[in-house]
Amino acid sequence: MDKDTIQFYFDFSSPYGYFASERIDALAEKHGRDVAWRPYLMGAVFAVVGTQPLLEYPIKGDYVRRDVVRSARYMEIPFRIPKRFPVSSVAACRAFYWLGDQDMALAKRLAQALYRSYFAERGEIDTPAAVVAVAQALGADGAALGAALQEPAIKERLKREVDQAISAGAFGSPFFIVDGEPFWSCDRLDQLDKWLETGGW
Amino acid sequence: MDKDTIQFYFDFSSPYGYFASERIDALAEKHGRDVAWRPYLMGAVFAVVGTQPLLEYPIKGDYVRRDVVRSARYMEIPFRIPKRFPVSSVAACRAFYWLGDQDMALAKRLAQALYRSYFAERGEIDTPAAVVAVAQALGADGAALGAALQEPAIKERLKREVDQAISAGAFGSPFFIVDGEPFWSCDRLDQLDKWLETGGW
Repeated sequence: MDKDTIQFYFDFSSPYGYFASERIDALAEKHGRDVAWRPYLMGAVFAVVGTQPLLEYPIKGDYVRRDVVRSARYMEIPFRIPKRFPVSSVAACRAFYWLGDQDMALAKRLAQALYRSYFAERGEIDTPAAVVAVAQALGADGAALGAALQEPAIKERLKREVDQAISAGAFGSPFFIVDGEPFWSCDRLDQLDKWLETGGW
Repeated sequence: MDKDTIQFYFDFSSPYGYFASERIDALAEKHGRDVAWRPYLMGAVFAVVGTQPLLEYPIKGDYVRRDVVRSARYMEIPFRIPKRFPVSSVAACRAFYWLGDQDMALAKRLAQALYRSYFAERGEIDTPAAVVAVAQALGADGAALGAALQEPAIKERLKREVDQAISAGAFGSPFFIVDGEPFWSCDRLDQLDKWLETGGW
């Protein structure tokens, strides 16, 4: 029987999702698993679960700003506080799924490039133009992508992906599901690792 | 200069606080640090920070129930789902501070015994009688403790402790502060460990 693929749900404006994106492929490869990268929109989740972005809670927001920087150092992942935070990741998500339908490896490289641009290089990723520029630098057809981002089809596609993620039980970024088991947050990469190693320990 | 004491804030009805309580003393000792155990009331925090108990969020609550059990297995800490959850930890906190004023080592043993009773043995810890019984088994004067729990003085004392914890910036369980640096949740024991090892890396 084929081994189950790891579903990796994340939001492009989530720093912990970025940290996970720098680790998940190597972790999966160690255990002979594939990873399905599935960007989605935490804004849609907040409406369903009744939470808010962490930074909007008093006290907690200050802690999170500090924790993000310290966690990046701890994990040895390049990180700089973005110029603006959080930002809309709608264009980034749409571009990912449009590219992914043609070339999933390229879409994954786009996701990594967008994350690094936003969280390590103080780049912007919240407009169609910014996303197209990053995609073009990776060899994608920028004109075709730019046009596609305006189409109703890709808007519908992203909506379906978000609904699917929420139906599957994802409510955070990063969020992993494999073998029917959910793992929420970067802090569960160790338990995910052990799960894959032992087949569920 | 004396090394700063680790402030360990926790709620007796928090499973992650229980997990941390089984690890923090050994971790601190490794680095020659003391730990000040400081039970407080998450209910008071929720009012200030605007959050709710994790279990009260739809979707998230189901995940947390699963994560607690899995995390206990991962950390190899005895755990059984309590008969009722969450419960009031007011009596437990008051008993801790009353005992602590006379014998802090005994108060810490009480905290450990209450946590184990509640999270590993399906015991009850939410009434004065239940707390007194646990304390008495450790050699405390049960009659004196039972009487003290009714006094306004100990109610005031706990209120001050809770206010102090919130003023210091604690908003979760477990929550650690040392050398001015805050660490929230069981998932930050590894960063706390590295912090103490390297003096702030």
